[in-house]
Amino acid sequence: MNVLEEEQTAFEIGVVVPKRDLKEEDKDSDCVEVLVDEFRNLGLVVERVHGVVDEFIKLAAPLETLGRAAAELHIKKRTPIGMDLEFEWEEVDAFERQPDGSLFSWCERFRCYRHIIYGIINKSQSSVTLRLDSKEFKWEVGEYLLQKLESERIVKEVFPLHDEIKRKKLLQTWALHWWDFTNQPIDEIYSYFGTKIAIYFAFLGMYTRWLLFPAAFGLILHMFDFGSLQLLVLPIFFISIILWAIMFSQFWKRKNNALLARWKIRYPIRADLGYRQGMEWNSSQSIEIAKKWGTDKTKEREMFQRIEWFGRLMRFRNDAIIIFSIICLQLPFELAYAHIYEVIGSDIMKIGLTTIYLFAIQFFTQIGGKISVKLIKYENNENTEKKADSLVYKVFGLYFMQSYIGVFYHALLHRNFSTLRKVLIQRLLVSQVLENLLENTLPYLKYSYKKYRVRKKKREKGSSTGKIQFASRVEKEYLKPSYSASIGMELEDGLFDDFLEVALQFGMIMMFACAFPLAFAFATLNNITEIRADALKLLAMLRRPTPRFSTTIGAWLNIFQFLVVMSICTNCALLVWLYDEEGKWKIEPGLAAILVMEHVLLLIKFGFSRFVPEEPAWVKADRVKDAAKAENMCSKQLLRSISGERATFGELKKSQ
Amino acid sequence: MNVLEEEQTAFEIGVVVPKRDLKEEDKDSDCVEVLVDEFRNLGLVVERVHGVVDEFIKLAAPLETLGRAAAELHIKKRTPIGMDLEFEWEEVDAFERQPDGSLFSWCERFRCYRHIIYGIINKSQSSVTLRLDSKEFKWEVGEYLLQKLESERIVKEVFPLHDEIKRKKLLQTWALHWWDFTNQPIDEIYSYFGTKIAIYFAFLGMYTRWLLFPAAFGLILHMFDFGSLQLLVLPIFFISIILWAIMFSQFWKRKNNALLARWKIRYPIRADLGYRQGMEWNSSQSIEIAKKWGTDKTKEREMFQRIEWFGRLMRFRNDAIIIFSIICLQLPFELAYAHIYEVIGSDIMKIGLTTIYLFAIQFFTQIGGKISVKLIKYENNENTEKKADSLVYKVFGLYFMQSYIGVFYHALLHRNFSTLRKVLIQRLLVSQVLENLLENTLPYLKYSYKKYRVRKKKREKGSSTGKIQFASRVEKEYLKPSYSASIGMELEDGLFDDFLEVALQFGMIMMFACAFPLAFAFATLNNITEIRADALKLLAMLRRPTPRFSTTIGAWLNIFQFLVVMSICTNCALLVWLYDEEGKWKIEPGLAAILVMEHVLLLIKFGFSRFVPEEPAWVKADRVKDAAKAENMCSKQLLRSISGERATFGELKKSQ
Repeated sequence: MNVLEEEQTAFEIGVVVPKRDLKEEDKDSDCVEVLVDEFRNLGLVVERVHGVVDEFIKLAAPLETLGRAAAELHIKKRTPIGMDLEFEWEEVDAFERQPDGSLFSWCERFRCYRHIIYGIINKSQSSVTLRLDSKEFKWEVGEYLLQKLESERIVKEVFPLHDEIKRKKLLQTWALHWWDFTNQPIDEIYSYFGTKIAIYFAFLGMYTRWLLFPAAFGLILHMFDFGSLQLLVLPIFFISIILWAIMFSQFWKRKNNALLARWKIRYPIRADLGYRQGMEWNSSQSIEIAKKWGTDKTKEREMFQRIEWFGRLMRFRNDAIIIFSIICLQLPFELAYAHIYEVIGSDIMKIGLTTIYLFAIQFFTQIGGKISVKLIKYENNENTEKKADSLVYKVFGLYFMQSYIGVFYHALLHRNFSTLRKVLIQRLLVSQVLENLLENTLPYLKYSYKKYRVRKKKREKGSSTGKIQFASRVEKEYLKPSYSASIGMELEDGLFDDFLEVALQFGMIMMFACAFPLAFAFATLNNITEIRADALKLLAMLRRPTPRFSTTIGAWLNIFQFLVVMSICTNCALLVWLYDEEGKWKIEPGLAAILVMEHVLLLIKFGFSRFVPEEPAWVKADRVKDAAKAENMCSKQLLRSISGERATFGELKKSQ
Repeated sequence: MNVLEEEQTAFEIGVVVPKRDLKEEDKDSDCVEVLVDEFRNLGLVVERVHGVVDEFIKLAAPLETLGRAAAELHIKKRTPIGMDLEFEWEEVDAFERQPDGSLFSWCERFRCYRHIIYGIINKSQSSVTLRLDSKEFKWEVGEYLLQKLESERIVKEVFPLHDEIKRKKLLQTWALHWWDFTNQPIDEIYSYFGTKIAIYFAFLGMYTRWLLFPAAFGLILHMFDFGSLQLLVLPIFFISIILWAIMFSQFWKRKNNALLARWKIRYPIRADLGYRQGMEWNSSQSIEIAKKWGTDKTKEREMFQRIEWFGRLMRFRNDAIIIFSIICLQLPFELAYAHIYEVIGSDIMKIGLTTIYLFAIQFFTQIGGKISVKLIKYENNENTEKKADSLVYKVFGLYFMQSYIGVFYHALLHRNFSTLRKVLIQRLLVSQVLENLLENTLPYLKYSYKKYRVRKKKREKGSSTGKIQFASRVEKEYLKPSYSASIGMELEDGLFDDFLEVALQFGMIMMFACAFPLAFAFATLNNITEIRADALKLLAMLRRPTPRFSTTIGAWLNIFQFLVVMSICTNCALLVWLYDEEGKWKIEPGLAAILVMEHVLLLIKFGFSRFVPEEPAWVKADRVKDAAKAENMCSKQLLRSISGERATFGELKKSQ
């Protein structure tokens, strides 16, 4: 088996334990030594590093160790016949490789690592006495070691480590690669960071590339004077950017599918989605139901229908609560701020007001995020990625109001394009420059502060008075902040903030496109730097993020599409105002009411299919059960015949 | 194997040949005798009936004969593990049964029959001399017998026969079952007529049941006077029927999926659709491409992309031609008719004009249908059902203009609700009563005329002068008209006209709902009779239709959804006119232009995803190829283990 040689075993997981004063006779019962021994017994490669304050255990796993763990986890992997089958170490040749040649993706490897190290259990007949310096405690029979050590606060953290070789290569080819600016090494990003982050950068890259067209159009509009045609050019611009946006979101879906096909991941077409992602929820639930109702099909079906509709109702209730509170609480607050800001004369007062406002919205957003997370717990979402999507929808409502209400207010109040333009420039420039700055300086400041604290701690212990150097790379990584979201950290990671930034920018440039065509050029410039800034942040400023399995950009695509629909309506309103400077086209309240009603109904027409899926839950459950049955039945036989075929093929190749 | 006993072999196929004066010595070389011998050799059960002018060969097949044909055809059937595997007669126990207990559905049986009888080939070393009365011709080596006889006009027709027992049962439980009016024996309809017709009646039944709500609402609106609330009640009615229609179309999709799950047919979720229906097209094309390009993946991908976009462009061009000609040719014609009809004073002139108009539109529709069929030939549609859908979209445009332009004209011209109401009542009553009458009398008249012609022919031959009785059932069936469409017969059957009627009615009642709420009650009554009339027509008036495999109502669902969107817009316009009797709300042309632009953009936004699919063609082709590979690999092994399991299970049951 020559697969073992192919893989270089890099250290990928770090475990942080405190430094101890260790005497030789204590070595047998010292808890860290026991832990390290257990790691070694499991077949992991262990390297120990003594840092300034803590000790670090670096772990790497040979392919076979990972493979055995994958088989225990029943991880499904793509085979050359296009079916996903449960992994078996004996039939390793029957499975498809990643684009970079490795057997497991980073997501799968991380799952296996966690399974291995958190699976250490006391299998002996009696409890084991463990010791840390003077403290002593018992590792009971059947207890998991790592959980025990974590609850005793001996293991401070378990985190993924950067792979220095790959990281440096990515820094060169990606983060610091300034020319050919939208061309990113997506495959390498995928194999280093996992699906979700790679999909984000693929999206950002495609978005930036596509932005070049409206940016150029906007620049032309800004630079040339079309004379009498001016009033005709704006509607053409409007129509073409809307068409552009519609095409962009559809072509992104195609690109997403093509990427997944390249990475050998099951395609997220609706039916398959249910299959892979619905697995957790459906299988456990259907077993439950089967236990309760035996083989009575009709009752099972009714049960499924009840669960389906109850889940939907809970979701509906939660969304209603969020929307209601946004409209009743946040909207008046935002309008009040915008109004007071307009009314106040002095600049100092304005600055003061804005400061208060900024603190207040920080506070409100945090509260909103917490409430959303709590509400989501009662929802019947299929898995964590769906839960995260649910959070994104809810929280985006907050941010939407924060970002645009002020602009709407100005647009409505002044009905003046030049004022609106000023507000837009202000917002775009300020928010983009500030955010790009903060994004990279904040982690650095956090890192420096942590370093400072460690040094201070060390000095207090009084060991040395000279400058303390952080010699080991793993310790530096430990001190770096992790890639986490500003709100709802239980469900989301730092991608939330990055996506939010892109989405808010998209909304800003699209919804007021007719008022300020130049915005697209600003956005393009910003995105080109954004790709680099985000890449640099991920590679240099932060710890390596925990990989997440998600095959699409999820809720964000729907948000983009919602923003496109919004921008059709807002731009039409802008055009009406623009052409109606004499106030002739006064719209009566009755007509306005009917128009609003019409738009609401059209949106319901097109949105309703999201609320009620085409496939009833029991049909889906049956299908999922059937598919699983089929795959399990043929799994082993198929694997043998595939690897047999491959072997013959290999021999043929050699003999040629 | 006790499966053989389960099936009653009813005669299901009829072959029509002319009557001959047969001498005993000619028996060996008489072509009909040879045909019958061949049928018997293939294992078919043959019964010969001598009619008044023709001779009829009735065919039935024992289950094993059908099974062997199904295995030759590689028909895929559902197995208990939820996978569709190729049928094998030896493993017959491994396949799921139909809801009525038979092994093959009517669709599958029909395919097998055709395969058997059209597969008769001259396998001997020399050509065979065949004789019909005095005419003599040769059946060459390797020539198909039935095609030969058809080209010599000896076999006049091959058509499916009614099964008298099932037909009578259906007549009782369905067509003449007047109480519990929307409850139909869908499962029996499915096993007698096949998927497509069963789906039509399930749809019609559900639509009628759902219509009860707006019908009741409409009746209340019509009967009670709400006084000052009158102006508020109409918008509420409008909103509720739109919501009703939106929910109906979504819940129909769910019902459709549930039906397919019950009938053990692969669900038409997008991915699977591509899998089953895309098979024909994709596999042949990918083989072609593979031959051309070898194993070069990138070139294959490019090729696929080229084919995909070329097909889409052709489709776009065709649709553009159709839409353009409808707007430029049909619209002026319809408007001219409506206008002249208004202008003319005398009633006689009006009747004359209408007669000319009716003949003209008959003619135009025929031409439109023919042009559409020709255009569709150049499209790259995946299979015949997709082609039929493409035809339906194109032709519906014609009918849409025919049916509604007049009403729109009246609505716009008079802006008067009572005139509009009169026009609507006229249209609804006239069209519905007339169509229901025609639907059943026309086939009967055709049947009578054919009978008369046969009698006349017989008398001319001078055999008897008394009344000629049609004693045999099969001859009567032969004289009945077949279930065929009024236009585009190459691609559609009679369901086209039935669906068209329902769709035009839906459009009429929805688009002018605010003007005439009572229309829903009319439509309900009409549909209740429509179900019976259609059932009676299929069971008693027509030949048994050729079964079609189609898992959804196809293009019609999209047409229903399009009509819902249209009705949102038209009803809003009606409401604006209603409330704007003083003419205060004059809409300026500029504002109107912007509103129109907005609506068009919104429709493009929601319709664009239909034009460009989410999954690129090469990804889909890969997936289809992979899935086929997987199923083929495990097919035989799986079948054996499934039937093994079933056998053990059966024994266990017996021993209990």
